[in-house]
Amino acid sequence: MITLASDFGSPYPAAMKGVILQESDARLVDVAHDFPRQDVRTAAFWLREVLPWFPPAVHLVVVDPGVGTDRAAVVVRAGDHALVGPDNGVCLPAARELAGEAGIEIFEIDLGDPASSTFHGRDVFAPAAALVHEAGVGGFETREEFEPVDSVVDLTFPEPTVEDDRAEGEVLVVDGFGNAITNLPGAVLDGRYGGRVTVNGERAPVEPTYAAVEAGQRLVTVGSHENVELAVNRGRGEAAFDVAVGDAVSLGFDQS
Amino acid sequence: MITLASDFGSPYPAAMKGVILQESDARLVDVAHDFPRQDVRTAAFWLREVLPWFPPAVHLVVVDPGVGTDRAAVVVRAGDHALVGPDNGVCLPAARELAGEAGIEIFEIDLGDPASSTFHGRDVFAPAAALVHEAGVGGFETREEFEPVDSVVDLTFPEPTVEDDRAEGEVLVVDGFGNAITNLPGAVLDGRYGGRVTVNGERAPVEPTYAAVEAGQRLVTVGSHENVELAVNRGRGEAAFDVAVGDAVSLGFDQS
Amino acid sequence: MITLASDFGSPYPAAMKGVILQESDARLVDVAHDFPRQDVRTAAFWLREVLPWFPPAVHLVVVDPGVGTDRAAVVVRAGDHALVGPDNGVCLPAARELAGEAGIEIFEIDLGDPASSTFHGRDVFAPAAALVHEAGVGGFETREEFEPVDSVVDLTFPEPTVEDDRAEGEVLVVDGFGNAITNLPGAVLDGRYGGRVTVNGERAPVEPTYAAVEAGQRLVTVGSHENVELAVNRGRGEAAFDVAVGDAVSLGFDQS
Repeated sequence: MITLASDFGSPYPAAMKGVILQESDARLVDVAHDFPRQDVRTAAFWLREVLPWFPPAVHLVVVDPGVGTDRAAVVVRAGDHALVGPDNGVCLPAARELAGEAGIEIFEIDLGDPASSTFHGRDVFAPAAALVHEAGVGGFETREEFEPVDSVVDLTFPEPTVEDDRAEGEVLVVDGFGNAITNLPGAVLDGRYGGRVTVNGERAPVEPTYAAVEAGQRLVTVGSHENVELAVNRGRGEAAFDVAVGDAVSLGFDQS
Repeated sequence: MITLASDFGSPYPAAMKGVILQESDARLVDVAHDFPRQDVRTAAFWLREVLPWFPPAVHLVVVDPGVGTDRAAVVVRAGDHALVGPDNGVCLPAARELAGEAGIEIFEIDLGDPASSTFHGRDVFAPAAALVHEAGVGGFETREEFEPVDSVVDLTFPEPTVEDDRAEGEVLVVDGFGNAITNLPGAVLDGRYGGRVTVNGERAPVEPTYAAVEAGQRLVTVGSHENVELAVNRGRGEAAFDVAVGDAVSLGFDQS
Repeated sequence: MITLASDFGSPYPAAMKGVILQESDARLVDVAHDFPRQDVRTAAFWLREVLPWFPPAVHLVVVDPGVGTDRAAVVVRAGDHALVGPDNGVCLPAARELAGEAGIEIFEIDLGDPASSTFHGRDVFAPAAALVHEAGVGGFETREEFEPVDSVVDLTFPEPTVEDDRAEGEVLVVDGFGNAITNLPGAVLDGRYGGRVTVNGERAPVEPTYAAVEAGQRLVTVGSHENVELAVNRGRGEAAFDVAVGDAVSLGFDQS
């Protein structure tokens, strides 16, 4: 199985699929091709949330603002999974989640000169993903195209500050429903359901799910990623709470 | 085969696919993931139009504004097909179409406490769809997770009024081309092709297909769903006829 | 393998997939379903760029503003590939690319009266694609539904003018990143990388890839389609160069 994720929109992902299918009968599963363009951090967040739900697979990841420069192309082995993508950190949060305590291994990809300088998804990453799939996640490094390396460009998400009376974090992403997903762990809401907290100074109810409040009303809840999210039942939380990606979120517990 | 339909956009559907593929080798086919958010009625319309074209399959359907509340999760067996989704009526019109005279059977799903309150697509419906697929549409109820029930939340579309000189209905959905699809049966246009009818008082030509009129011109035709639709050749019918979902449509035949 | 391409958006492509899967176990791969609506030329461009990356396959192509009129439905055999679609030229550039010197063969499709006048993707092209796939690209014409014909509606892209001091062409398409892709062959930039050309009179740097200039800066480069494109690193080239599809692009080399 090979999953595919990119910021390519359409129809560029189809060229990657064609290239893979020239070399492999792998099942292909799209993760997303509408990640915000060149936004490595948002893609990294979503991959960390989604890829751990998959059985062992090769994950082709192309959000690559440095295409054609001297940034490396890498395979990250994480347990029974392998992630193939640019060396810009986009694969790292998901890889750490997939690898757990076993840790990750990094390999640099060298396929020779690619056909283009502007579409390595088609000319480097797709053929590399097919090679890894056909050789096997456990043993692809016996092929000369893959060289173990010690270091890789990393990417981490900011750590929140959690205290007794408040939690300080930020908005990591806004999903398609308008839910503003923060880096605050959902556990800060334990024992507060049915009550209220302040969000950047304004009170809002804490509820286990959207429809616990009336349509159009705000709520603070825990999303499926186990982080605090700012939401509106049948509406857009990021607008109602007036926050965007990267904005600070301060929860106050005094009044709960 | 398992089809997937939701209002999730991206990348949430990929998590559902991962969960299914942990348990099943089923072929996965996307129906749509861009249904209008939380719009149960529009999703129900499209599923009724699209699912009958499929061979026997399990259909995973998640348009679920009540996620995390006490609404049930159900499987609807309809002939050789099974639909898995929330008990809010979204599956019912398609199920009745698929079942025909044999009728439908309903089963409530109980998988224990789900991992989240906000993403039952991943935590309830996807694993249930995999279970139904693996156990078989004809016999999944031998598993303890499924309990037959007598009643279900239903959803029906409004019935039109058809008389000799007029037909009264409403716009059910507007498709991506801008065609305003009504609940009026296409048969009301029989014998009127090449002529005219009035639409909410204004005359418009009746034609068998879009390109029978000049680009930019309005027409009344029968869509592939066999309902009357209000269209514009290479343009948007809903704008030209000034109608939206739920608006009344009155066809007058006097002047045809 | 059957690939699918259309301007249908969603959920109409799912009905085509259902119809195919009634008759065939073929692997289905989406090329794109968001081609600009009724824009035969843009679809033809992308198909020419993407389909040659696929292994032998049947390619279902439906961008069909003339649906329901007397335009024919055709299969174009191109080497080990077959393209199935309306006789409006949309398949021709890709077919010529796939066929190479062997040339193409054309067959008209006759499946009898289709179920609808407005959705031949579902009622004509999808069943025809399944028939071609099951009978084989090399021999489907032994079936009575396919009749060889001599002529077909063609579609060609405008030829550029290339001279020593300038190259004159036009914008063929703008991709999702905002890159304005021209009909000028990339070879006109050979020997000019790191220098400058004029684009419609204004100087711009020539670089091998986007990130060779600062974010937000313009560049002239060669895209993965081997044509000249007007781009902005992490921005939209068509806006910065003030060009749209069909606009003239004049490159001047005097000042490079």
